[in-house]
Amino acid sequence: MAPRGHTADDVARTALRILDDHGLPDLTMRRLATALDVQASALYWHFPNKQSLLAELSDRIVGRMASGTSDDLRSRAGALRDALLAYRDGAEVVSSTLALGLGSTLALDRLTEAVAADGFAPDTARRVATTVLHYVLGFVWHEQQRLQYDSAGAREGARDTPFTAASSADDFTFGLDLIAAGLRANGRV
Amino acid sequence: MAPRGHTADDVARTALRILDDHGLPDLTMRRLATALDVQASALYWHFPNKQSLLAELSDRIVGRMASGTSDDLRSRAGALRDALLAYRDGAEVVSSTLALGLGSTLALDRLTEAVAADGFAPDTARRVATTVLHYVLGFVWHEQQRLQYDSAGAREGARDTPFTAASSADDFTFGLDLIAAGLRANGRV
Repeated sequence: MAPRGHTADDVARTALRILDDHGLPDLTMRRLATALDVQASALYWHFPNKQSLLAELSDRIVGRMASGTSDDLRSRAGALRDALLAYRDGAEVVSSTLALGLGSTLALDRLTEAVAADGFAPDTARRVATTVLHYVLGFVWHEQQRLQYDSAGAREGARDTPFTAASSADDFTFGLDLIAAGLRANGRV
Repeated sequence: MAPRGHTADDVARTALRILDDHGLPDLTMRRLATALDVQASALYWHFPNKQSLLAELSDRIVGRMASGTSDDLRSRAGALRDALLAYRDGAEVVSSTLALGLGSTLALDRLTEAVAADGFAPDTARRVATTVLHYVLGFVWHEQQRLQYDSAGAREGARDTPFTAASSADDFTFGLDLIAAGLRANGRV
């Protein structure tokens, strides 16, 4: 019997709220149980361990990428960035889930489709998508680290280097365009 | 007077060893003090806070990039990857230091120089180097997350997706070549 009538969806929604309010280090099963007013053991009815809970959150975060079919690599990568930025520590949740081999392959699939739609072979499309996924995760990870330090006041008095300043949509697009130009150049060879 | 004869170099070397043996979450000032057999307060003689200690470690990690002048963007990016991989959680130490606006700008400078050496304007060189730095940090972050989960046994039974499998030198080079091809293509326009 499911505990206290909480569904897996209830648990995941509450976990996302804790993530967004307090960040990944403070998202513990104990805190989640307290927020739901159940024993921590009751959570394991829905999620056998914390990794599987984070995988569910990762799927929900990545699921914010629009599901259109007409959009290109650049707009899909931008949609992924927006999805990751929508929740505090989103890049870390998604990256750790991918590193564990858990969660859906939606992000990679959507990027791969966009490259393949331009006529590239499946293997090339997958490798280009992998490059873009590493770039997007690396970029947003940096953005979210800065946001976290800013909100904690840890960057007071810190100088902005050319790299730390690089976290605007404009810089993000510059890198993506470079990768896309490389793809087109390789396609011509 | 410096405590117990420990120099800043002693403290940093011991911290690097703890980082490599136990990972960033377990590198606490308390643990470091115990390893050096001093009170935690004694560490603040050399490093006013943990951020400044991590910035010193970041500089030492990035400092492993060879100092040659003849190497190109691809080999410098490869040298940065090797440097980050040389210490457990190296990518996280360096990325968090950069996000705080601390540490040296060596990594970005070395990458920028390589692009500028190909005849690109300083602003372009800096932006390309920023893209490469995000890519390298994102790639190695993913590699090190996988290594950490593997050593903890957390990936037992996990499936390898096309993305999780992508952490070889070959995949790293593929992405770099794509960025370099984009740069050359833009240069021709």
